[in-house]
Amino acid sequence: MITSLNITLQLRLANKPGTLAKVLDAIALEGGSLGAIDLVSATPSFITRDLMVRLKEKGHLNDLIQTLKRIPDVQVTHVADRVITRHMGGKIEVVPKRPVQNWEDLAIVYTPGVAVVSETLAQKPDMAYKLTMKGNTVAIVTDGSAVLGLGNLGPTGALPVMEGKAVLFKQFGGVDAVPICLDVHEPQQIIDTVAALAPAFGGINLEDIAAPKCFEIEEKLKQLLDIPVFHDDQHGTAIVTVAGLINALKVVDKDIHSIKLVMSGAGAAGVAIANILISAGVRNLIVCDRKGAISRHNMPSEPSKQWLAENTNPENIQGSLKEVIAGADAFVGVSAPGVLNRADIQKMSPKPVVFALANPEPEIPPEEIYDIAGVIATGRSDYPNQINNALAFPGIFRGALNCHATTINDEMCLAAAYALAGIIEEDQLTAEHIIPSVFNEKVAPAVSKAVEDVARKTGVSRKGLHNGINGHNF
Amino acid sequence: MITSLNITLQLRLANKPGTLAKVLDAIALEGGSLGAIDLVSATPSFITRDLMVRLKEKGHLNDLIQTLKRIPDVQVTHVADRVITRHMGGKIEVVPKRPVQNWEDLAIVYTPGVAVVSETLAQKPDMAYKLTMKGNTVAIVTDGSAVLGLGNLGPTGALPVMEGKAVLFKQFGGVDAVPICLDVHEPQQIIDTVAALAPAFGGINLEDIAAPKCFEIEEKLKQLLDIPVFHDDQHGTAIVTVAGLINALKVVDKDIHSIKLVMSGAGAAGVAIANILISAGVRNLIVCDRKGAISRHNMPSEPSKQWLAENTNPENIQGSLKEVIAGADAFVGVSAPGVLNRADIQKMSPKPVVFALANPEPEIPPEEIYDIAGVIATGRSDYPNQINNALAFPGIFRGALNCHATTINDEMCLAAAYALAGIIEEDQLTAEHIIPSVFNEKVAPAVSKAVEDVARKTGVSRKGLHNGINGHNF
Repeated sequence: MITSLNITLQLRLANKPGTLAKVLDAIALEGGSLGAIDLVSATPSFITRDLMVRLKEKGHLNDLIQTLKRIPDVQVTHVADRVITRHMGGKIEVVPKRPVQNWEDLAIVYTPGVAVVSETLAQKPDMAYKLTMKGNTVAIVTDGSAVLGLGNLGPTGALPVMEGKAVLFKQFGGVDAVPICLDVHEPQQIIDTVAALAPAFGGINLEDIAAPKCFEIEEKLKQLLDIPVFHDDQHGTAIVTVAGLINALKVVDKDIHSIKLVMSGAGAAGVAIANILISAGVRNLIVCDRKGAISRHNMPSEPSKQWLAENTNPENIQGSLKEVIAGADAFVGVSAPGVLNRADIQKMSPKPVVFALANPEPEIPPEEIYDIAGVIATGRSDYPNQINNALAFPGIFRGALNCHATTINDEMCLAAAYALAGIIEEDQLTAEHIIPSVFNEKVAPAVSKAVEDVARKTGVSRKGLHNGINGHNF
Repeated sequence: MITSLNITLQLRLANKPGTLAKVLDAIALEGGSLGAIDLVSATPSFITRDLMVRLKEKGHLNDLIQTLKRIPDVQVTHVADRVITRHMGGKIEVVPKRPVQNWEDLAIVYTPGVAVVSETLAQKPDMAYKLTMKGNTVAIVTDGSAVLGLGNLGPTGALPVMEGKAVLFKQFGGVDAVPICLDVHEPQQIIDTVAALAPAFGGINLEDIAAPKCFEIEEKLKQLLDIPVFHDDQHGTAIVTVAGLINALKVVDKDIHSIKLVMSGAGAAGVAIANILISAGVRNLIVCDRKGAISRHNMPSEPSKQWLAENTNPENIQGSLKEVIAGADAFVGVSAPGVLNRADIQKMSPKPVVFALANPEPEIPPEEIYDIAGVIATGRSDYPNQINNALAFPGIFRGALNCHATTINDEMCLAAAYALAGIIEEDQLTAEHIIPSVFNEKVAPAVSKAVEDVARKTGVSRKGLHNGINGHNF
């Protein structure tokens, strides 16, 4: 049996006072935290209940079950894993917008009626935005080479993540998203495959593809295709990070143009964050990789890091992360746990902004620096200020699809970041509230509108070309 | 404005007796046939109505509108095309099976909860049948090179057909189907692309790919992949044709083993029909292409026709279709309109079975031979006995997915044909009722069960390997 931390226990309890209380004590004693309790059935002698429990750690389930079994009047009748249960049969489905109820429906949806639509599209492919799924559908493409923080799990290992992403695309952005998990791993093979399957889609969300190949794949696909190609691990993360930073700087009252900002991590997300930070006006930006500050003194071999060397670190500072962080106003980490300690944060300017986004373990535990940091953000949902991609990608693609955009350019990304930051009104902005919740219903519409507006302004919108497809008014 | 034959007219009529009657007379006079009439709004002076009209022919809309406008008290306020209306925004969507309602849901569906599922699948990819969309999802793959009977419309031209097919997959078979329209056209490119994107899918339905490349593509993909690969234009058509033939022979009381059967057409469908006819027991089968009977006297160059030469025409007969059809008990045409006339059918054995499946115009119009044919079938919905692929593919893939089949073999196809034929009970079998309607709810379950049973018997089922994924009973 697979186990996550989220367990549902079904217990058969003697129907007498105090039995449930003993169970709850036992769960607490074992470090489990209790969620909902459902009543399954009750007789004069027995009550059957479902208890949702979150375990303290993996592998703790057996201890908990043994403890429960030792309580008199308690039987453990069933144990299920809520993560596994929720994944059984998959998380998405493909459904008709309207059912086919009779011969006429069938003749309209399929042959022979569909023929006139096909013939039209063969002549005018852009009308696919109106007359097919293309106008609302995105492919989520991965080769599974960098799944979450877990590394190369391959295409099948990546599939449940892509399905989860498709759920969020639809729920938050109204976007239909199709997981495409590729069993090829060379950049050119991935490029060829995505270019081949592009016609049915209005956008391509690249996902969980390892650096540095993700850079080449995105760049070449952008050149090849006339639909947006967007590597979410780069730009989605960058947009939400910069949105958080914009608000964090308001909280500590610093100007984005004059801050010193040090980053740790020059992978996919790091490069994209640096790019958008520069667009947002950050001048003194120093990016460190494992070897320390990237500078023109010591030109790296990877093209993406060469770009960083040429476009950041204006004073060409050398040194380790722990050296260059001295005097910094802000830190953004997309690297690894433990690269900073309390003493490092103390070397920063007063009220430092610390974005420790390594997942699941941040670059420095927030607990260590609550008293000295101005604002802290992480990638986790169990601390305030979670930098979560789900704040960006549904609205980004919603906006791009709304105007049949040909690309998602830097201006659209920056506009998305400002729109996201703007959702927190000034009077609600605090050190622990710099970024909205993913369940805030204003998020996707605000991001979408900003993206769409800037698409039009920057000339990458196609919308308006094909009105009047159907219907004449007299 | 695009126009099909299916129009909705919105009319504003003076609210006095006889106005609507004049409209209906005018529509009839112009050859339009009237469907539903909806009341949109009514005032003491005016009534607004929607009239569903099917035009006699394309391009007839303007005449009809001019005629209606000349009627006193009638205003044409809006004209819409029902085919276009039904296609607006596409016909399918991708939806979450359950919504994400709170942070716990999010943590289970997406990161961090999904990680345990991903890690499990990276180790045991076959568990994807249980824990992801794979177990219920098929890719409908085309390059648009042979769309319906319309020829090479390209990937975008094919998309509305693939979406229509996805609608039918879900509605009739409960199968989630994803249109994949490829912008590559060389067989090896198509093979490489499909092999690359296969991991998320439990089956591949190849569709509307031109012969002869469809043969190579299907064959190589079957070798490469461990999921079913099924070219519906071949095998779907073949299954339904053979199902119809089995019942037609019952009607005319002839034995499948002793009939002489002549076919016209040696393309994708023709080869597949011949193959399954041989499996079904037909011995004396002669297939004609444009040059006449395919035989070993005159070996064709295409491998698929060589196969026909070697496996059909036991007496090695030569001659044109019109020659070899003399004395035949049954004819199956998947070729072109007008290749046969009444005199040809008169040369056949008594009570000949005539399947004239060319679409939209059959090999011979049924009207010409009603009095001399034993049974007639076509590909059209406006004659009895429609040979419609939609009778096969939803149940075929439902059965294959149910048992996690590795392939769809000939035995499964033949079993599907017999199951489909068996839906018409003996006492309901007549010359005009040899095949069930696609709306007959017994169809997909019967086909699915037959396919699944034979998959198990022939050892291509994977089901049963991965039970007990979640949950322990105590």
